[in-house]
Amino acid sequence: MSSVYRKIKGGVTAPLGFLSNAVSAGIKNPDAERLDLTLITSKSTCVAAGTFTTNRVKAAPVKISQTHLRDGDVQAILANSGNANACTGLNGIRDAKLTAKTVGKSLGIKQSQVALCSTGVIGLPLPMTRIEPKLHPLTEGLSRGQGLDVAKAIMTSDTCHKEIAVTVKLGDQQIKIGACCKGAGMINPHMATMLCFVTTDAKLSKAALNNFLSEAVEQSFNRITIDGDMSTNDSVIMLANGAADGASIKRGTKDAKKFTEALNYVLLEMAKSLVRDGERVTKFVTIHVKGAKSYNDAKKVAEAVANSSLVKCSWNGNDPNWGRIIHAIGYSKAPIKEELIDIYIGGLPACLGGLEADTHMHKLREKVAKPEFNITIDLNQSQGEYTVYSSDLSPEYVDFNRSEYAYWKQARKDGLTKQ
Amino acid sequence: MSSVYRKIKGGVTAPLGFLSNAVSAGIKNPDAERLDLTLITSKSTCVAAGTFTTNRVKAAPVKISQTHLRDGDVQAILANSGNANACTGLNGIRDAKLTAKTVGKSLGIKQSQVALCSTGVIGLPLPMTRIEPKLHPLTEGLSRGQGLDVAKAIMTSDTCHKEIAVTVKLGDQQIKIGACCKGAGMINPHMATMLCFVTTDAKLSKAALNNFLSEAVEQSFNRITIDGDMSTNDSVIMLANGAADGASIKRGTKDAKKFTEALNYVLLEMAKSLVRDGERVTKFVTIHVKGAKSYNDAKKVAEAVANSSLVKCSWNGNDPNWGRIIHAIGYSKAPIKEELIDIYIGGLPACLGGLEADTHMHKLREKVAKPEFNITIDLNQSQGEYTVYSSDLSPEYVDFNRSEYAYWKQARKDGLTKQ
Repeated sequence: MSSVYRKIKGGVTAPLGFLSNAVSAGIKNPDAERLDLTLITSKSTCVAAGTFTTNRVKAAPVKISQTHLRDGDVQAILANSGNANACTGLNGIRDAKLTAKTVGKSLGIKQSQVALCSTGVIGLPLPMTRIEPKLHPLTEGLSRGQGLDVAKAIMTSDTCHKEIAVTVKLGDQQIKIGACCKGAGMINPHMATMLCFVTTDAKLSKAALNNFLSEAVEQSFNRITIDGDMSTNDSVIMLANGAADGASIKRGTKDAKKFTEALNYVLLEMAKSLVRDGERVTKFVTIHVKGAKSYNDAKKVAEAVANSSLVKCSWNGNDPNWGRIIHAIGYSKAPIKEELIDIYIGGLPACLGGLEADTHMHKLREKVAKPEFNITIDLNQSQGEYTVYSSDLSPEYVDFNRSEYAYWKQARKDGLTKQ
Repeated sequence: MSSVYRKIKGGVTAPLGFLSNAVSAGIKNPDAERLDLTLITSKSTCVAAGTFTTNRVKAAPVKISQTHLRDGDVQAILANSGNANACTGLNGIRDAKLTAKTVGKSLGIKQSQVALCSTGVIGLPLPMTRIEPKLHPLTEGLSRGQGLDVAKAIMTSDTCHKEIAVTVKLGDQQIKIGACCKGAGMINPHMATMLCFVTTDAKLSKAALNNFLSEAVEQSFNRITIDGDMSTNDSVIMLANGAADGASIKRGTKDAKKFTEALNYVLLEMAKSLVRDGERVTKFVTIHVKGAKSYNDAKKVAEAVANSSLVKCSWNGNDPNWGRIIHAIGYSKAPIKEELIDIYIGGLPACLGGLEADTHMHKLREKVAKPEFNITIDLNQSQGEYTVYSSDLSPEYVDFNRSEYAYWKQARKDGLTKQ
C-alpha cells in the first residue's frame, strides 16, 4: 500500500457531494426485484471526462454520452443493466434521450448534463414502459448511503459487486476518489462489456481530468481489453465536483503526482476485479513481458499470450504448458528470437533459451493450480516491458455463452419482458 | 462438380509413380499399434514446392524442409505424428537430419531430397530410439496401395482420415492430383496444426508449381488459418513427378487453367475437411462478406466474425445471435456503417440496416441448428468480397484442451514414452 493514498469504505458516494440511488425496473427480469436502474448525481456542477469503446458499432447511450461530455459539464450518470440499447437505431436514440430529459427535469439540470450507460443484450429495444415510471422515484430517493446499490444495479453476469474508495492528503486538504464497475463477459479483447464510474471531490480543470483519466485507463482497463477490441457499450465516466474545497490540481505538480497515483490505483484495482470475476473464470494470471526490443513488441507478445484460447485452456487444466505460450509468442508478430526466450511460471523456469527447463513438472503444476499466478516472459533482446492481466478459459464459460440472445428474445415473446 | 476434373478413389498414391508406406513407431503411444511414421516417395525425380507456417517459432522439420525445397528437388516426404519436434533446439535439428539421412540412404537419394514434417506435442525431443529402427522397414515396404495409411499416420486428434484424388484431362493426356491432410486443434488462427501433402503426375516447372500452389493455398488453407497466425509446424508440400508423360503445363495456358481449377478444388476440399473435423466441432459455417469497400475490408470483417469466441459459442448453442456478429463486425477495424449492415443466417434476414429483422426466431434457430449453414454479411458499401470457413466453439473443446502437455510429460516420466 502506498503512503500517498489510503483505502476507505464505500464507492462512488464516498467523495463529498455525491448522491446515488438504484431501483428495480424489471429490465433484467420483470418477475424478480433485481436492481437494474441507477443514478449518480453531484449536488454541485462537475468537471467530467469519459473514455468509450472504439467499436464502430456504438450503443445509443455511448453516442449520447460522448456528445454530452464533449459539449458540457455532466452532473449525473443514469445507467441500466439488462439491455444494451445497442443496434436499436433511431428508436434507441429517442428512448435514451427521453430518459436523460426526464431525469434532467426531475433534477433541475439540462438533459445534456446527464450521461447515459446501458449494458446487457444487444439488438432489443429498451423496455420504456417499465423504465419511465421508475425515473422520478429514482431521483426522489437519492442519498449518500447507496453507493453500494449502484455497484449492484449495473451487474449483469458479474457474480459480485465491485467498488472502491481512497482518500488522499494534498497539503492540508483531504480529497477522495470513489469508483464502481461491472465486467462480465470474459475479460478478453472483444468480449468484455464493462462500465466504470469514478467520482472525486477534488477540483480539476477539464483538460487535467481528461489527461489523468486517459492515463489511468491506459494502465488499467486497456491492459485487460486488449487491442481496442471493445464491446458496443464500454464506458468509463469520471465526475469531479471540487466539493472538498481545495485548490485546483494542476498538471505537473506534486499534488497531481499524488492524485494520479491514487487514481491509477483505483482504476487498476477495478480492472483487476473485472478479470477475477470474468465469466466462469478460475484463474487470475499476470503476464509480464520484458527484454523486448520495444514497448510495442512487449505489448504484442503479452497480448498474444493473454488471448490464446489454447494457453487459457491449459491454465484451466492446471497445465504448465509452456509450449503453447512460446507458440503464441511466435505468432505475435514481434521480432523475437526463439533461442533467447525464457518463460517463468510462478517464478520457476519452465523454458530457458527456448528449451524445456529442468524444473520438476509437479512444482510447475503447483504454481498453475493456484487461483492467482504470474507468467514472466523474458525475450532477452532489449528493455521493452509490458504487463497484461488475463484469465483461464473454462468449459463452463462456453456453456454459459451458448444461448443468450435466443433466451432473451424468447423471454420477450413469452411476455416475461412485456413491451 | 466441374467438367474439368473428376473425383477418383485414393489419395497421394493415386497419381502415377508415387509410393508410400506407414508404420507404428510407438511415438503416439508405445503400447498401442497406431500408425505414426510415414513416407511418400516418387519413383522418379520431382519438382517440389511448399508453403509453411509464418510463426517465428518454427519446428526443426519446418526449418529443414524449407532449406531442402529451396535448394533442390525433393523426392520424398517423411512425416511423424505424436511429437512436433518444436522448441527442441539443436538436438531437434540433429535428430530430424538424422532421419532424413537414414531414409535418403535407404532410398538411394540425397538427404536434401527428403522433406520432413512432424505434428504433436511441442517441447519434447523426438523418441529417436524408437524411430530409428523403423526407418529401414518403412522404405522396404513402400507400395502404391498404401496412400490411405499415410492419411491415417499423420492424424493426431483428428477423428477421421482425410484424402482426396482427382483426374484432369489435358488435351490427350490424363493427369492426376492426390492429397491427404490432417488438422486437429480448432480450425482457427493460432490453433491449427495442419499438414497437407499433395502429389501429381503432371509435369510442371518449379516456378509454375510454386505459383499454382501459393494460389491454391491462398483460397483454401489461408481461409481457415486466418491472419497468418499459424502453428510451429504447419506445412503444405507438393510433389510433381511428370510420370503422366505429358507436356509441361505452362502458366497462362488453357491447360494451366484446368490444372489450377482442379488443384484449387483439391486444396479447398482438404481445408474444409479440417474445419469439419476440428476438435469437438459440431458446426461448419461459411461466412461470406460482401458489399465491403475493399477485398481487405471484407477479409477483416469475415475474420473478426469467424474468430469471435462469443459468436462461436452462440452457434454451439443453436443461437442465431446476430448482435454478437454485428459487434464483431464493429471491432474488425473495417470502415463499416452500422445502419447499412444486413446479416443473413442460412439465407434468412436476421438483421437489416443494422436493426433486428422481422424473421421468426424459430426459423433462424432451425438454420443455426443444422450441422452446416451460411452467414452472409452485406455491408452495402461497395464491391469487396471475402469468404472464410469457421466452426463453433464447444465446452468439449475447452475440456479437451485443458491438459495436453502435463499428460505427455507425465507419460514420459512414467516410462510410457521411454527415451
